[in-house]
Amino acid sequence: DSTLKVFTLNSNIELAQEIAKHIGIDLGKSSVTRFSDGEIQINIEESIRGSEVYIIQSTSDPVNQHLMELLIMIDALKRASAKTINVVIPYYGYARQDRKARAREPITAKLVANLLETAGATRVITIDLHATQIQGFFDIPVDQLLGVPILANYFEDKKLDDIVVVSPDHGGVTRARKMADRLKAPIAIIDKRRPRPNVVEVMNIVGNIEGKTAILIDDIIDTAGTITLAANALVENGAKEVYACCTHPVLSGPAMERIQNSRIKELVVTNTIVLPNEKRTDKVTQLSVAPLLGEAIIRVHEQLSVSKLFD
Amino acid sequence: DSTLKVFTLNSNIELAQEIAKHIGIDLGKSSVTRFSDGEIQINIEESIRGSEVYIIQSTSDPVNQHLMELLIMIDALKRASAKTINVVIPYYGYARQDRKARAREPITAKLVANLLETAGATRVITIDLHATQIQGFFDIPVDQLLGVPILANYFEDKKLDDIVVVSPDHGGVTRARKMADRLKAPIAIIDKRRPRPNVVEVMNIVGNIEGKTAILIDDIIDTAGTITLAANALVENGAKEVYACCTHPVLSGPAMERIQNSRIKELVVTNTIVLPNEKRTDKVTQLSVAPLLGEAIIRVHEQLSVSKLFD
Ligand SMILES: Nc1ncnc2c1ncn2[C@@H]1O[C@H](COP(=O)(O)O)[C@@H](O)[C@H]1O
Ligand SMILES: Nc1ncnc2c1ncn2[C@@H]1O[C@H](COP(=O)(O)O)[C@@H](O)[C@H]1O
Repeated sequence: DSTLKVFTLNSNIELAQEIAKHIGIDLGKSSVTRFSDGEIQINIEESIRGSEVYIIQSTSDPVNQHLMELLIMIDALKRASAKTINVVIPYYGYARQDRKARAREPITAKLVANLLETAGATRVITIDLHATQIQGFFDIPVDQLLGVPILANYFEDKKLDDIVVVSPDHGGVTRARKMADRLKAPIAIIDKRRPRPNVVEVMNIVGNIEGKTAILIDDIIDTAGTITLAANALVENGAKEVYACCTHPVLSGPAMERIQNSRIKELVVTNTIVLPNEKRTDKVTQLSVAPLLGEAIIRVHEQLSVSKLFD
Repeated sequence: DSTLKVFTLNSNIELAQEIAKHIGIDLGKSSVTRFSDGEIQINIEESIRGSEVYIIQSTSDPVNQHLMELLIMIDALKRASAKTINVVIPYYGYARQDRKARAREPITAKLVANLLETAGATRVITIDLHATQIQGFFDIPVDQLLGVPILANYFEDKKLDDIVVVSPDHGGVTRARKMADRLKAPIAIIDKRRPRPNVVEVMNIVGNIEGKTAILIDDIIDTAGTITLAANALVENGAKEVYACCTHPVLSGPAMERIQNSRIKELVVTNTIVLPNEKRTDKVTQLSVAPLLGEAIIRVHEQLSVSKLFD
């Protein structure tokens, strides 16, 4: 059968190294640099003819740069006769632009899917798409892995008592339910609503949190407005302590300040997005998705089902 | 017939305003901003259903950002039922990655063409593609306009005596010939060659420049290495004075310093790429392509030939 090769681009170099180590191979030799005018220059420094190639790249901030690196790499691999071009996108950027909420909006998540296919991707492996529907934006196979088992294992190992898993909004209830099943815990929901237009939102908590250890779970934490308001509401309404967790730590703008000043005791995230040093505070724990992605790559390469393993 | 609308993105806002003024319409209402995490957000604030839309955007530095703005805008226009989506790309970035010079290189100029078509562009209007072959990378109509007439007119108006038009390398001789025809002047060529590998290049000048006013012409001036070495060689070999001109002032890295320290008397460029203040020195003259592009848009909209006008 054909050789498996893993290449990294610039978004998650350490993760790619960990994945290669998990699989037991070296990363493919390549360099991604920029010309003086900012244009991306890619050099693939080993033959990949007939190989099954996996590229590790999150389309995280700077998203346009990271996306173009990925598209250009796919183009280069295609022209160099790779047998398959599997793009591993731990964090799929632009996922929140997944529908026309208002007139004349783009659907950028679908555009990105089309761009990846046009460039020549033959398969996508990703983790926790903001909307599962994005799988259907592609006409090539998409394997979606889940962050919940990794996050749940961490909390299991902590042996916390009297847990309640909390969804910070209506959209995240299914995810909270999955987490709760693993932790054998009940769920609660932060039920925000605006009684009348132009009136302040009320934060109602559905479910019993009194005296309990609450674990808030979301897929993405971006500016951290929702999650910190939810954490503070939980404490004010009688929760003993509040943990928060998510798969994708976007953590942009005021996020870190909000988290530091909030009632969140610990924020648990994965490394689908690299955390720069200033975001690696005492409150933040980062778990690795490398074993998950490494295992998925091995299984895809051996033509085994990925969903069996991780759902 | 259908309404003509012109929208701008962020690369060349002033040029777009000038073009709209030339046509005699207002720019379409839209905003292009960024979310906290750097993702592009586009709002089109007027109906474009059934309209023939022209988008003005150079894919200049930051090229990936500008390209994604363009792709997302095209996607939004397509979903909002524009009748035609004409992308006006005064400067087409990534044009120098137009062939596989070495093994396993991408052909990014072709990738970009595919991305634009996938997003939904129905026509491209551009100026001085680095290689005319890039027209063939598209399966939609491409109108390529030329910068030479604008540059030549400027030098004509200066009424310089005893001119010679000089190509800084072998690749640019056709362009120099076009310029020379308009100025009724002879041409010369900087004929660089390396006598043996690992030996310094010799700069030989083919043609008579003795005592003449030399006008160097290129399509792109990027780091300005070629053009400033050429200018200095011309003066050292007896040229009276040296002007330089190009269509696309990329002017990255050491370019401005090199130009300031060179024997170039005046650098004449167009506004296909915006010059930030620090590049607007006494030596630099910028000419507008707005009348050219405005006229081209009017002619395309009226289904008249563009090439007749400008070749
Ligand atoms: N990068 C982004 N940052 C913040 N909000 C976004 C971003 N992309 C899309 N949105 C908005 O987020 C909303 C969708 O998020 P959601 O309701 O969680 O699916 C829409 O109103 C989008 O306009
Ligand atoms: N943005 C860029 N800046 C500098 N050189 C580039 C750029 N893009 C491509 N090149 C190189 O320029 C050469 C092609 O330029 P040319 O010979 O003028 O067509 C190739 O060797 C490319 O690798």
